[in-house]
Amino acid sequence: MTKQKDKIKEFGDEIVTSVEKGKQPKIHIPVRALSNIVFNQKTKTLELGNKMADRYFFNVAHAKKFLQTVEVAAVSRELIETGKHASLRDVFYMVKRTIPNTSTNIVDDQTESDKSMEDLELITSFSREQLHVNANKNGSVAGSVVIEDKGDVIDWSKMGSGGWSIPSNVEEITFKKVHARYVLYMEKAAVWERLHEDKYWNKHDCIIMSSQGQTTRGIRRLLQRLSQEHSLPIFVLADFDPYGVYIYSVIKYGSINLAHMSGRMTIPSVRFLGITADDIIKYDLKKHFIKMKDIDFDRLKQISEYDWFKNNKPWQRQFKMMKDFGAKAEIQALSSRGISFISEKYLPDKIKANDVLD
Amino acid sequence: MTKQKDKIKEFGDEIVTSVEKGKQPKIHIPVRALSNIVFNQKTKTLELGNKMADRYFFNVAHAKKFLQTVEVAAVSRELIETGKHASLRDVFYMVKRTIPNTSTNIVDDQTESDKSMEDLELITSFSREQLHVNANKNGSVAGSVVIEDKGDVIDWSKMGSGGWSIPSNVEEITFKKVHARYVLYMEKAAVWERLHEDKYWNKHDCIIMSSQGQTTRGIRRLLQRLSQEHSLPIFVLADFDPYGVYIYSVIKYGSINLAHMSGRMTIPSVRFLGITADDIIKYDLKKHFIKMKDIDFDRLKQISEYDWFKNNKPWQRQFKMMKDFGAKAEIQALSSRGISFISEKYLPDKIKANDVLD
Repeated sequence: MTKQKDKIKEFGDEIVTSVEKGKQPKIHIPVRALSNIVFNQKTKTLELGNKMADRYFFNVAHAKKFLQTVEVAAVSRELIETGKHASLRDVFYMVKRTIPNTSTNIVDDQTESDKSMEDLELITSFSREQLHVNANKNGSVAGSVVIEDKGDVIDWSKMGSGGWSIPSNVEEITFKKVHARYVLYMEKAAVWERLHEDKYWNKHDCIIMSSQGQTTRGIRRLLQRLSQEHSLPIFVLADFDPYGVYIYSVIKYGSINLAHMSGRMTIPSVRFLGITADDIIKYDLKKHFIKMKDIDFDRLKQISEYDWFKNNKPWQRQFKMMKDFGAKAEIQALSSRGISFISEKYLPDKIKANDVLD
Repeated sequence: MTKQKDKIKEFGDEIVTSVEKGKQPKIHIPVRALSNIVFNQKTKTLELGNKMADRYFFNVAHAKKFLQTVEVAAVSRELIETGKHASLRDVFYMVKRTIPNTSTNIVDDQTESDKSMEDLELITSFSREQLHVNANKNGSVAGSVVIEDKGDVIDWSKMGSGGWSIPSNVEEITFKKVHARYVLYMEKAAVWERLHEDKYWNKHDCIIMSSQGQTTRGIRRLLQRLSQEHSLPIFVLADFDPYGVYIYSVIKYGSINLAHMSGRMTIPSVRFLGITADDIIKYDLKKHFIKMKDIDFDRLKQISEYDWFKNNKPWQRQFKMMKDFGAKAEIQALSSRGISFISEKYLPDKIKANDVLD
């Protein structure tokens, strides 16, 4: 943790030096606005552009943000020194207080401390997990993998029906043994339980991982580490709907909110396994369609216009079919073909045929 | 699983016998409507009353529900026979199909198959988990506990930073070793991570368990089993708001939806540890108040009028204070007193002083 502490100290030292020299203290950071977010065609990720900005202490419009950033840096430093981790919500409460002799609070709303935390990520080049500030905890994992975490040796193949509960921060776990051909990530815990009960990971030499809905940063980093450190292909299994595509898109290309962290979060090699429009036809799932609402159509239009999708023919074909169907379908619709159809037929066939979307 | 299968067979046999005798098949079950839900002052739980009803096959208003119940029973039987478990959503898709030569679907909406599943719980006297139909999966646990589940021996004290991921169904786990004085259940995963990092369960000989928001049936059953089989006190730690009180209320007294299952789900001995109105004053948390909205006031009024709260003076005092404050506060507001204030001061003091609400 010395590196992180050094970076924070460096940040503080610069401010102190300015003050001592009688200069106005400033923070020099990239602009984090839509206008400075670009899709890098080479790395295939959403990144920040080159626009930089200065935040001055003696500027009525900047002073509060300046102070917030310094306060969040102090909290992070304290956490690193004590070896503890906090959530963003904790950081908000730790920073929140009224400036003496004024009625002004350092932060009034969590979005302010969150933004400062993002600034600190940019200033230090460390993720907030590395700065000891954790995201939400969610999700389970199983597979022939042994890890070490906080001195415990944990065998993901011996976790009963529950699996290992994925922590919010996976920076410090080490992989002792990874026996898997690929990782299957799904957005639904119920589907994970189905595959786990069918011993899918054991029969097919893979790792199964799930969240419930949103993919947390902990899960994304765990997927990324398995991809980078163990060269495992990552497959995403999601509902056939705009939200399912969005889940895949965020894992693969990043999101506007995390553009400043894209290198640490995105997994360009991730592949979309299903549910696709072709699966719907092939497996006769049309009768389990759920009608799309206006909001779904709007979302679909938005997604289909993303930089990375707009010239992607296979995806445009999917979007057109979804629009023409006017309907979405859930992973669990496969259960209409039999409770273990997904693990005995659907997944093995798809993976064998390499029937994926990129 | 023979008992469950026998009960389902019994249910089917009765229908077949009626048909063979030329009698109209019927299902005799308790009425599950607000009019038949009573608060049992003795057991202190929400239960079904004595009103019974017959559901006839040859009755236009009953026929569909009759068929749905039979279909869900068939799915459950198949699951038990194959040793597999399904989610409610799976059951919906497994039951859903169009009746030949008609345009009528057996079920159109998941609420229909869900209701039939509840009927089957009443008919067989088994919970749906025992009938192999699982609820949502959520939550983590840590402590000096060793369990066996699906042939795996799992040590809750050696799960790294993640903990054991609680499955949706905990009926078949066995406790090999339970070394704990009490269980602390909290509604927030971030607070669980705080306590886990501070080794709270190790220092205070307890089990820490969390969900994210709602308390799943898996968690409730796990809490109940630890309470019943190991006589452990259960403490609930929730935000100071109507929703936090509701979480506690459901665990302790049950809910209208689950009145037919109250014996298997409620834990009358559970105690509310905090956050209380007195904690707010004692620990100077007023500055971290969040203003209550109309919907919060409505919810508070509703809860304060519950049968089990309306003559409970300590709780009525809390409700009045909450109303007078016109504000709620989160567990994490304690972080304003220092990141580990909760595990080093707040919780040990509260538990030592037995400062709880019943």
